[in-house]
Amino acid sequence: MVEKKKQNTAVLLMHCPDKPGIIAVITEFINANGGNILYLDQYVDRINGVFYMRVEWDLDNFGIPSEKINDYFQTLYAQRYELTYKLSFTSKPQRMAIFVSKMSHCLYDILARYIAGEWDVEIPLIISNHPDLKIVADQFGIPFEVVPLNSSNKIEMEQVEFDLLARYDIDFIVLARYMQVLSEDFINRYHDRIINIHHSFLPAFVGAKPYHAAYQRGVKLIGATSHYVTTDLDAGPIIEQDIVRITHKDTIDDLVKKGRDLEKIVLSRAVEKHIQRKILTYNNKTVVFS
Amino acid sequence: MVEKKKQNTAVLLMHCPDKPGIIAVITEFINANGGNILYLDQYVDRINGVFYMRVEWDLDNFGIPSEKINDYFQTLYAQRYELTYKLSFTSKPQRMAIFVSKMSHCLYDILARYIAGEWDVEIPLIISNHPDLKIVADQFGIPFEVVPLNSSNKIEMEQVEFDLLARYDIDFIVLARYMQVLSEDFINRYHDRIINIHHSFLPAFVGAKPYHAAYQRGVKLIGATSHYVTTDLDAGPIIEQDIVRITHKDTIDDLVKKGRDLEKIVLSRAVEKHIQRKILTYNNKTVVFS
Amino acid sequence: MVEKKKQNTAVLLMHCPDKPGIIAVITEFINANGGNILYLDQYVDRINGVFYMRVEWDLDNFGIPSEKINDYFQTLYAQRYELTYKLSFTSKPQRMAIFVSKMSHCLYDILARYIAGEWDVEIPLIISNHPDLKIVADQFGIPFEVVPLNSSNKIEMEQVEFDLLARYDIDFIVLARYMQVLSEDFINRYHDRIINIHHSFLPAFVGAKPYHAAYQRGVKLIGATSHYVTTDLDAGPIIEQDIVRITHKDTIDDLVKKGRDLEKIVLSRAVEKHIQRKILTYNNKTVVFS
Amino acid sequence: MVEKKKQNTAVLLMHCPDKPGIIAVITEFINANGGNILYLDQYVDRINGVFYMRVEWDLDNFGIPSEKINDYFQTLYAQRYELTYKLSFTSKPQRMAIFVSKMSHCLYDILARYIAGEWDVEIPLIISNHPDLKIVADQFGIPFEVVPLNSSNKIEMEQVEFDLLARYDIDFIVLARYMQVLSEDFINRYHDRIINIHHSFLPAFVGAKPYHAAYQRGVKLIGATSHYVTTDLDAGPIIEQDIVRITHKDTIDDLVKKGRDLEKIVLSRAVEKHIQRKILTYNNKTVVFS
Repeated sequence: MVEKKKQNTAVLLMHCPDKPGIIAVITEFINANGGNILYLDQYVDRINGVFYMRVEWDLDNFGIPSEKINDYFQTLYAQRYELTYKLSFTSKPQRMAIFVSKMSHCLYDILARYIAGEWDVEIPLIISNHPDLKIVADQFGIPFEVVPLNSSNKIEMEQVEFDLLARYDIDFIVLARYMQVLSEDFINRYHDRIINIHHSFLPAFVGAKPYHAAYQRGVKLIGATSHYVTTDLDAGPIIEQDIVRITHKDTIDDLVKKGRDLEKIVLSRAVEKHIQRKILTYNNKTVVFS
Repeated sequence: MVEKKKQNTAVLLMHCPDKPGIIAVITEFINANGGNILYLDQYVDRINGVFYMRVEWDLDNFGIPSEKINDYFQTLYAQRYELTYKLSFTSKPQRMAIFVSKMSHCLYDILARYIAGEWDVEIPLIISNHPDLKIVADQFGIPFEVVPLNSSNKIEMEQVEFDLLARYDIDFIVLARYMQVLSEDFINRYHDRIINIHHSFLPAFVGAKPYHAAYQRGVKLIGATSHYVTTDLDAGPIIEQDIVRITHKDTIDDLVKKGRDLEKIVLSRAVEKHIQRKILTYNNKTVVFS
Repeated sequence: MVEKKKQNTAVLLMHCPDKPGIIAVITEFINANGGNILYLDQYVDRINGVFYMRVEWDLDNFGIPSEKINDYFQTLYAQRYELTYKLSFTSKPQRMAIFVSKMSHCLYDILARYIAGEWDVEIPLIISNHPDLKIVADQFGIPFEVVPLNSSNKIEMEQVEFDLLARYDIDFIVLARYMQVLSEDFINRYHDRIINIHHSFLPAFVGAKPYHAAYQRGVKLIGATSHYVTTDLDAGPIIEQDIVRITHKDTIDDLVKKGRDLEKIVLSRAVEKHIQRKILTYNNKTVVFS
Repeated sequence: MVEKKKQNTAVLLMHCPDKPGIIAVITEFINANGGNILYLDQYVDRINGVFYMRVEWDLDNFGIPSEKINDYFQTLYAQRYELTYKLSFTSKPQRMAIFVSKMSHCLYDILARYIAGEWDVEIPLIISNHPDLKIVADQFGIPFEVVPLNSSNKIEMEQVEFDLLARYDIDFIVLARYMQVLSEDFINRYHDRIINIHHSFLPAFVGAKPYHAAYQRGVKLIGATSHYVTTDLDAGPIIEQDIVRITHKDTIDDLVKKGRDLEKIVLSRAVEKHIQRKILTYNNKTVVFS
């Protein structure tokens, strides 16, 4: 794996009711304590009166120790500005688990980026309900756990998964064409931390066999959608979508083939944004910073 | 208007059960009678075993008089090959009526192409349920008829429309953001001859206010779909679709604005294919020749 | 024309060497004087150390009279932060002239938006080197001046154009497929205020007949590029580009036809951004705010 | 690797001067000898008067032995119709070599498809001028040969490559971000059988460092182009191109990152078309059948 320079920055993702001066207050707090701002992007939803911001700053000369920054924020700003925020530190890469079933294209796309050092993440665990893709995990030397979950044993098998996720200290989960619906309990434990790829331009063709449905309907575009998983099937906050043009000549097999390229790219774009801590959710929608 | 060279070709659009030798038989018929083939495109749906073809040939030296070609086809091929076909002649441009309500962007896009001579069509009539766009019709010197149709007077007002369509000898109708649902009777009279533009990537966001629904759902792409009108709302054969990327920054007004450009281009592409007689419908889907 | 609510806002477009606290200083100046910020977008080019910002605020309760805001900026910030900035007021719409030759598609696209009230702009003048499109100007009731400029009389004919531009109090110029190269003097007078549409994805196919060149080269995509005109042919700051897919089946005529739709949309997007004062130029590139 | 059903078809790729009846003659030849046509697509370049066709038929009940089909074609049609054609048989998969340098994204994308059985091809050999990617070849169990070619030893090192290509019985070569220019001799030996990926939308940004050039020029789109290699640098017949939108916020590193996804998809699309024998070249352009 490519060696990457160790990062040492803090990332603040926040939203709050829009009031004058919020940017000034936050940026002055950082500047005054010796933090060098490396990234600032903000967005105001003027219709709903909500202010969103992502700011990232260098901690090398920052006057407040990392473990105390959250206290300061809490005390100084959280109540006063009604902040909802998440503070994280890039010195510790997030740990990601991949759930797969039998299809390898998304898995390969993720692992190829990982091994090339494109992403600041650790992938210590792959879970599958089938043994088929163990060969891929082995190629990359990543532990592969088969949890033969199905509709009749979901509760106990998910408990097995929870144990694995805890043991491997997993921060977030990527469903890379994992063909099982998660339980409500599972979803609630990993709120905004499970990324799925659905093989249609949602909200068209929710549920099973979207390429068959697309073929049947005679659409001229097919799509793919990555989203956070919520308890409503295929209805969580959309992170990224893209489409490819098809024609009457394309069979269902052609749609499946063209769709694979869409799925892997759209999923990887979403995963990258999550790794970069550039996504905020609000009202079942996402703010994705550039 | 730009003067265009008078065309004199025959266009055969056909489909039939796929059997060996159909192309050979049809092209030899044309060649043997002195017809110079200017265009031939064919497509075999091997899953359903259907053969589709569009062939166009020069009539200048064709040995069979135009008015007898249909008889020959009927006698020689129609039964033998179970052909479903449509034979048309480009020497007589089709006559198109435009239905509008209050929005002008699609209407302008169509009329600008028409006046520039881009399309081999005649547009003798614009019908609206509101007087607002008479000013646009007047700019281009095209008769504009207000038929104040609403849900309570639809049957009698559609009769007024039928009379207008008959009087102006209309071949097909374009609904250029016409905000009324046509009756079943109307739709059946103009089967595969009414082109609508819907402001979403169907089948997502069927029905009213798709941009509001798209905003609500938080999609990252919005689309537009042109289709032939059938008695199922927004469910007819799709001719053309396209999308444009949006972000969390886009308000509903932004979607409406970005959508307008999509709508007009997607509708005009579909109208052009119809004018060129390049669309076949089958099983509620379209074959669109290039 | 659709009646639009009169706007009364100030727009500040600025760039300067990146230093901590600039956003805070500017937004506090606005907030402290009772200005309600309606839009703020900023971007830091961290490689070159340049800070870019666009901020727009409501003047209705702003404590400083409009005519004095510039003085305040100049005194308080311009030197201290080495600002390069432009302050403008939306209460007075900009005045735009369109230059055309013989092709109508871009002209119609612009005028249809104008007449529908999509843009906060005035279009009091169309200039052409040919009389062909007078009919379009007449449709929309806009003065049309023929200035029969060619390579041998460019200097004196441009003088005629300068007089027209002055008489009609023109702020900026749109070359809507105007097939003449402007003199250096002309370009310098309207620095960053002349928008051109070139019918290729620049820098490919600079100069004349790009569709012929694209056909010859066998590309699979054709494009269009809108840019500010500089004294280097087709080399000014790019505002917007887009492409459309083509195949081996497309003739040069097909490219021209498909290209027309690209050209008009790409040009109109650029013109809209300019009207909205959302474009900054720097180092022969543009920052285009969303 | 996924097991695929053995194919047994013949593929004819041909072009010739356009004359009436060619389709009929060829299809009758196939039908009359018991061949079931599985695919037929044709295209007439009416400007240059050239007819192009790809036809594929089932050999299972074909009356002429495979090894004699070429003789028949030669005798019956080649001279009479001035055919330029290539006849191939799908029962024997083509053998492909991949040339790489240090970047892995295209290589992984190809090998992931290969191992999943997406392509009817064999990949027995990877050649590189650096040892870096041996680890990837080892993951997939494919022989990896380092040929430390540089500008001063090109002739002798290419001889080593020729020997390897011969020993492994290679049919065609994919340059998957191979950062060396091939000699004229090399290119001529593998005419229309070397596929390269160039990281720009050619003909823009020919040569080295196209992302730097794109950044410098301030384009709003970046692209990738796959093409057959000819002796003119980056000027061979284009097979496939695509683009992705960028903004002023994107640094050169961002372009490189966004470009990687383009490069791998565009290259793989081209390789797939080549494997499927769906590409004809003519006049330094490609006809790519769908």
